[in-house]
Amino acid sequence: MTDTALSKVAIIGIGLIGASVALAARHRKSDCHIALYDRDEAVRKTAQGLNIGDEICADSAACVADADLIILAVPVGAMKAVMSKIKSHLKQGAIITDTGSTKRSVIRDIGPLIPDNCHLIAGHPLAGTEFSGPEAGFPSLFEGRYWLIIPGEAPQEKVSQLEQFLSALGAMTEQMDAEYHDRVLALTSHLPHLIAYTIVGTATDLEQDLKNDVIRFSASGFRYFTRIAASDPVMWRDVFINNDEAILEMLQRFNEDLSYLQRAIRWKEGDKLFELFSRTRDIRRSIIDAGQDS
Amino acid sequence: MTDTALSKVAIIGIGLIGASVALAARHRKSDCHIALYDRDEAVRKTAQGLNIGDEICADSAACVADADLIILAVPVGAMKAVMSKIKSHLKQGAIITDTGSTKRSVIRDIGPLIPDNCHLIAGHPLAGTEFSGPEAGFPSLFEGRYWLIIPGEAPQEKVSQLEQFLSALGAMTEQMDAEYHDRVLALTSHLPHLIAYTIVGTATDLEQDLKNDVIRFSASGFRYFTRIAASDPVMWRDVFINNDEAILEMLQRFNEDLSYLQRAIRWKEGDKLFELFSRTRDIRRSIIDAGQDS
Repeated sequence: MTDTALSKVAIIGIGLIGASVALAARHRKSDCHIALYDRDEAVRKTAQGLNIGDEICADSAACVADADLIILAVPVGAMKAVMSKIKSHLKQGAIITDTGSTKRSVIRDIGPLIPDNCHLIAGHPLAGTEFSGPEAGFPSLFEGRYWLIIPGEAPQEKVSQLEQFLSALGAMTEQMDAEYHDRVLALTSHLPHLIAYTIVGTATDLEQDLKNDVIRFSASGFRYFTRIAASDPVMWRDVFINNDEAILEMLQRFNEDLSYLQRAIRWKEGDKLFELFSRTRDIRRSIIDAGQDS
Repeated sequence: MTDTALSKVAIIGIGLIGASVALAARHRKSDCHIALYDRDEAVRKTAQGLNIGDEICADSAACVADADLIILAVPVGAMKAVMSKIKSHLKQGAIITDTGSTKRSVIRDIGPLIPDNCHLIAGHPLAGTEFSGPEAGFPSLFEGRYWLIIPGEAPQEKVSQLEQFLSALGAMTEQMDAEYHDRVLALTSHLPHLIAYTIVGTATDLEQDLKNDVIRFSASGFRYFTRIAASDPVMWRDVFINNDEAILEMLQRFNEDLSYLQRAIRWKEGDKLFELFSRTRDIRRSIIDAGQDS
């Protein structure tokens, strides 16, 4: 084992992300010991049955004991409570990271609880599906996906250790600051989810006949939205509450732009519509060029 | 050849849909003669090169001459002009159908131009991709997809002939009236496209750094929207202008629902968010149960 290798990694929260980290580490033949904990006993049993990781712990203190790296893979609203429970059981020099979709709130909530001799490096893998729970995990989830990290005050050596571990899962790490992260994600992920939840919600309120046919004829357009709107409700509730500022800013811009189009439709101003629709094609091409879709 | 078979089918407009109809008919070994016409010479040459259909005609009159079925596969804003050109060249008893995404406007625009001895049965295949042009066509585009038709005043025998032809392409036909069609599609297709165009447009207006990272980190959420927003600008401009009433109605509902969530975020009312997010999961399950996704 080299100096920079981690001997034990603890994962708190065995959902889609936590399970996938453990599966990816094993799949890639990482030689560190992977211990997992979930506060839900049924989830722990499922994880045991699925043979996820090296050890499923019955309490969080045992899970984090002697761990060089602790990964908090719980909804962002639960980070503080989890950190309070584990903070006095941490090994000296341990790295604490998380997988939450909001970064300012996580640093605000758990930063003050990190012991002096430990290091917080908040993180966020840009990977996921609309499914949740340990059964939803799979080892290739992070392959070729970005894993954003917020180095904060952590020593370079610790940042490198974390990046090495994440790269071994197949992810591409990228450093940024928390505020920038929250703004970018507000637009790329949080606002799209909010809109998808909204339009699918709008459909559920239609009279029954119309609703049935909306479901039957959902091809093209609406179907995409329903996939996004099937994502984990607890995780997303916490995201919206904890990145409210950036989301409300982006939502404001979105609303202005939508009103502009609404007015163009009402006044049959086809040229305004055509101009925008041509412009948005270029963004799609940029995304394909950036290798984030095909 | 049976009594109900069509000897010649004319397709006006060789885009994704027109080309796919011709390719599907040949793929399924339909024995009717398929003639195609597009007003763009470059498109006609491409179609010739791709060996689409039995004949690429240099003018629309020749294309529709002797045809038992004419399929107008042009943007809905172009239907009237096309119909004016072909109306005096139609065979007695011919069926005229279209593939436009709005049905009240097409019937309003071309209904009065249909000769007394011909039969309009407006139609709409719920199939497509974000690509356009003859190169984008493929024979399995309609397999297992709905193809909605508006029988109107057409005799049952003609409706059956059309349904038989469309079923042979792999589609599932379904009859409905034009107004109901336009309301259902406003929510399942038109509003999702409008929203996708809007949010991708919002992204293009961001400062350059942020925009670059929105593109790089587009996984989960935004990426879906960019795919939708890459659809053909002319086709979609025409859809919004021609189904304005139903779209503005659905947009009004959507805006109310979005304001409700916006307020819930501002006041950190997590329970309201959670309640909606749980409800939208059920719609996704209904769509999977309806066989429209997996």
